[in-house]
Amino acid sequence: MTLSRETTARLLISCPDRPGIIAAVTGFLYRHGANCTALDQHATEREDGVLFMRLEFQTPHLDVSRSMLEEAFAEEVAGKFDIKWRLSYATDAPRMAIFVSKHDHVLMDLLWRLHRGDLHAEVPMVISNHPDLEHEVARFGIPYYHVPMVKGEKHTGEARMLEIMGDGIDVIVLARYMQILSGSFVDRYVNRIVNIHHSFLPAFAGADPYRQASDRGVKLIGATAHYVTEELDRGAIIDQDVVRVNHRQSSEDLRRLGRDVERSVLARAVRWHLEDRLIVHENKTVVFV
Amino acid sequence: MTLSRETTARLLISCPDRPGIIAAVTGFLYRHGANCTALDQHATEREDGVLFMRLEFQTPHLDVSRSMLEEAFAEEVAGKFDIKWRLSYATDAPRMAIFVSKHDHVLMDLLWRLHRGDLHAEVPMVISNHPDLEHEVARFGIPYYHVPMVKGEKHTGEARMLEIMGDGIDVIVLARYMQILSGSFVDRYVNRIVNIHHSFLPAFAGADPYRQASDRGVKLIGATAHYVTEELDRGAIIDQDVVRVNHRQSSEDLRRLGRDVERSVLARAVRWHLEDRLIVHENKTVVFV
Amino acid sequence: MTLSRETTARLLISCPDRPGIIAAVTGFLYRHGANCTALDQHATEREDGVLFMRLEFQTPHLDVSRSMLEEAFAEEVAGKFDIKWRLSYATDAPRMAIFVSKHDHVLMDLLWRLHRGDLHAEVPMVISNHPDLEHEVARFGIPYYHVPMVKGEKHTGEARMLEIMGDGIDVIVLARYMQILSGSFVDRYVNRIVNIHHSFLPAFAGADPYRQASDRGVKLIGATAHYVTEELDRGAIIDQDVVRVNHRQSSEDLRRLGRDVERSVLARAVRWHLEDRLIVHENKTVVFV
Amino acid sequence: MTLSRETTARLLISCPDRPGIIAAVTGFLYRHGANCTALDQHATEREDGVLFMRLEFQTPHLDVSRSMLEEAFAEEVAGKFDIKWRLSYATDAPRMAIFVSKHDHVLMDLLWRLHRGDLHAEVPMVISNHPDLEHEVARFGIPYYHVPMVKGEKHTGEARMLEIMGDGIDVIVLARYMQILSGSFVDRYVNRIVNIHHSFLPAFAGADPYRQASDRGVKLIGATAHYVTEELDRGAIIDQDVVRVNHRQSSEDLRRLGRDVERSVLARAVRWHLEDRLIVHENKTVVFV
Repeated sequence: MTLSRETTARLLISCPDRPGIIAAVTGFLYRHGANCTALDQHATEREDGVLFMRLEFQTPHLDVSRSMLEEAFAEEVAGKFDIKWRLSYATDAPRMAIFVSKHDHVLMDLLWRLHRGDLHAEVPMVISNHPDLEHEVARFGIPYYHVPMVKGEKHTGEARMLEIMGDGIDVIVLARYMQILSGSFVDRYVNRIVNIHHSFLPAFAGADPYRQASDRGVKLIGATAHYVTEELDRGAIIDQDVVRVNHRQSSEDLRRLGRDVERSVLARAVRWHLEDRLIVHENKTVVFV
Repeated sequence: MTLSRETTARLLISCPDRPGIIAAVTGFLYRHGANCTALDQHATEREDGVLFMRLEFQTPHLDVSRSMLEEAFAEEVAGKFDIKWRLSYATDAPRMAIFVSKHDHVLMDLLWRLHRGDLHAEVPMVISNHPDLEHEVARFGIPYYHVPMVKGEKHTGEARMLEIMGDGIDVIVLARYMQILSGSFVDRYVNRIVNIHHSFLPAFAGADPYRQASDRGVKLIGATAHYVTEELDRGAIIDQDVVRVNHRQSSEDLRRLGRDVERSVLARAVRWHLEDRLIVHENKTVVFV
Repeated sequence: MTLSRETTARLLISCPDRPGIIAAVTGFLYRHGANCTALDQHATEREDGVLFMRLEFQTPHLDVSRSMLEEAFAEEVAGKFDIKWRLSYATDAPRMAIFVSKHDHVLMDLLWRLHRGDLHAEVPMVISNHPDLEHEVARFGIPYYHVPMVKGEKHTGEARMLEIMGDGIDVIVLARYMQILSGSFVDRYVNRIVNIHHSFLPAFAGADPYRQASDRGVKLIGATAHYVTEELDRGAIIDQDVVRVNHRQSSEDLRRLGRDVERSVLARAVRWHLEDRLIVHENKTVVFV
Repeated sequence: MTLSRETTARLLISCPDRPGIIAAVTGFLYRHGANCTALDQHATEREDGVLFMRLEFQTPHLDVSRSMLEEAFAEEVAGKFDIKWRLSYATDAPRMAIFVSKHDHVLMDLLWRLHRGDLHAEVPMVISNHPDLEHEVARFGIPYYHVPMVKGEKHTGEARMLEIMGDGIDVIVLARYMQILSGSFVDRYVNRIVNIHHSFLPAFAGADPYRQASDRGVKLIGATAHYVTEELDRGAIIDQDVVRVNHRQSSEDLRRLGRDVERSVLARAVRWHLEDRLIVHENKTVVFV
């Protein structure tokens, strides 16, 4: 359903599953004039299950201010059901930092989608450990920061990056950023760093996955968008896709074919993150699409 | 979420969209001890939109009998919001008649899935305009009725089929049944006859679609499961899929490759129908999966 | 097999099928020091079949000049077997004109692939019936010609386009060019104009295919790259692909999802054309990949 | 191209790559009246490359007997170029043993394809470590041998299987046979045992891959057909495919969805093996399709 972005709010919920939660949440919204226009829910299957829910609702006829609505929800509903929740408004464009190294294909794809309005975010900076793509980024009027990463001095580099980002970054997208982020960096952005890995994880984690795929003789190659955790290529998978290959293709050909998969998979993952469609639970994602 | 089939009920709803419906329905269920374990909804985008909803709920703690619950729902909720609804219980296996002509691949696939418990239905009969597959069907202990269709006497044949089916058939699956059903026949089973057409509709409606596809030189061939309407191959599409082909493949090869697509697409469509996951609106399907 | 572009030649052949052709062609090349490194062939299935063949061979050890090799081939082999043939050298970048209207996604994708070296062609011009994309094209240092198409004066516009192109254009790519080319224009570039149509042809030919797809309620949408003939959307199909959609998606969503399919399908088709991998026969393509 | 199976022969070749081989082979066939109707070739990219080639030719106009043709080829061509080769005739149905445990879906699918003529092989036996599927196999008139595998006595069981098979088995298909074959068993059938593994290898090798996939939260699950080597799930991959899954699906659902992929992937792999379309080189397959 296409509704005005101006008036759309989104509520993401997770809590211990027990009867009455959906009725309580939707009843609360209804009583305050919030018209629920989309609802997705999922519950894990175990006895001590967890309930996840995403609602979109329209705000024009709210009987209270947004802040009062949030206060009332916390008091009347969230407390009672032990709900963790997050309320956002579609008009508030998330602030997204993009990290990149030398490959341009994923970066350019993201910038074009943002430019075209396919993705709704504000991009105040691109940060790279190489100077190569500055000119391309400048075309879009976005500041480009070159932060070299010196071997053995990762923390110096990361400190510089954190300083540049300041406090206002909501999400970081690694658009083929070929550095491993430290645990302490990742801890500041838990479930807020989206990476694209150029293989069908868990196959071919680590370095040069196209070479690994070529060596193993697989018949499909893939790409995986996932949240970054301290352990390399082990975070919760957001989306994956594959493309068929054959014996004629060298690892160089796989690289070329894989580029298209990388950029479409990452674009979907970023879109879902920006639209609050993702919940991470036990290192897996619930994707409300 | 995997829950006991014994206790699962499903409620399918469509009604004019207005605020408060989800809260009213989920609140009603909660008050009567029905624990809602799955909820999907969709609303069309126009001003005078229509709301569709599918709920699964668990019945062990109902405070009333099933029939009283249905009565109360009609009175307290459905009337107020002008809701069309259908309540079913997962234990009640729908009664499914299968029509087939001479091709065995789709029929055998369905019978195996039913045998294996992948599809939950009772199949009291297979009806065919040819005697060829009687032996295969007999293996599964299912009665096989040969009802020849004589040119110009379609109504005689169809009358015989209706007589065999009697009143207790919930859904008819056309597993490559190569006869066109009359309008009067179709009218008795509106949105309850599922057909598999061996092309990617709307391309190549009508006879011999693989030949048509081969002649046109398409690079993908497909299959389409749809509800049958009086107009040939024009009913609401339930699911579609495709497979890649190339210039080396004759129309005979396309037939072979297409068989796999036909059977998997039809199996999905039948599963969704049996699980009350489909709503037809303006000749399109809402698919709650 | 990755071999030096510097030394690779390609021979495309079609002729009436009879015994001995492959031996004659490969024997000829061998005798002249041309090492055949790839060979694909296809024959139609009818009695009066047609043989198609594509060879790649390496030229460093040729015992004659290229022009003498071509002369000798014509005399010794082609005449004898009534062969239509085309010999090209991988170093000779084809000259490609791109026509576009207002949508940028396909154009930008092509320009980036060319820039990155994924596609090997020289692009001396982009021609558009709108001025909108001039700035984007200028970034790549490619001349942009705005040739308005006035209703009822198609021939004036086309004459201007032909004048701009001159004699040296090998292939024209329609990157979402929303004008119908006249028969006389098309006749000058038979099997050398590649178009991307934003549907899974033959479904939804003509205007606004995403709207048509949305109205029909299909579950997959697609894109089709084809050679342009005078009859709209009826030329030989080069490649197609699809993406899954559902009831939640408006025709606007289909447009967004379709863009990714359009650009990847067109990129493949253009690559195959540039690498002499396509032969058109009876309005179908033989694709040697 | 559809040609009579009666007259079709296939020649598979591998040898050190050097100029003139294709001309020599096709010239030889032509001189003996063998009309080459299909030719595929591939060469590895290294300096000391290997050439692989598959030819189909028609035998009605051979000027010598089949055995004399083979002798002449060995003498005149194969020796000169150090060619390893294999010549087969499409009329000679390979003899295929099927091993199965308890899951019926892959076995039934193969038996139906054989019954329908989609696969061209003679199946003199099905061998299982369980008695469960005897009745299903009997329907097809195929002998079923129950060979229990007792822990710690693998060699006793395998000896019994070898005895049952005797000398005339060309290929063994593991249709979800859940025992690991010993190295000595595998050594007798190098590149002649085709297995279906129910994951997208190399991800999730070993036991219960659907559980592993569910635990990791992948968004695609797959199946892999490969030749069996002594090392578990490490043999040359023949084909793979995937299907999309989401957070709602339990590992039981993955099992059900995966079944369709398993059977279609294995069917393709078996078809290619039976039609001499596969060459194994450095634990990877060249697939001539």
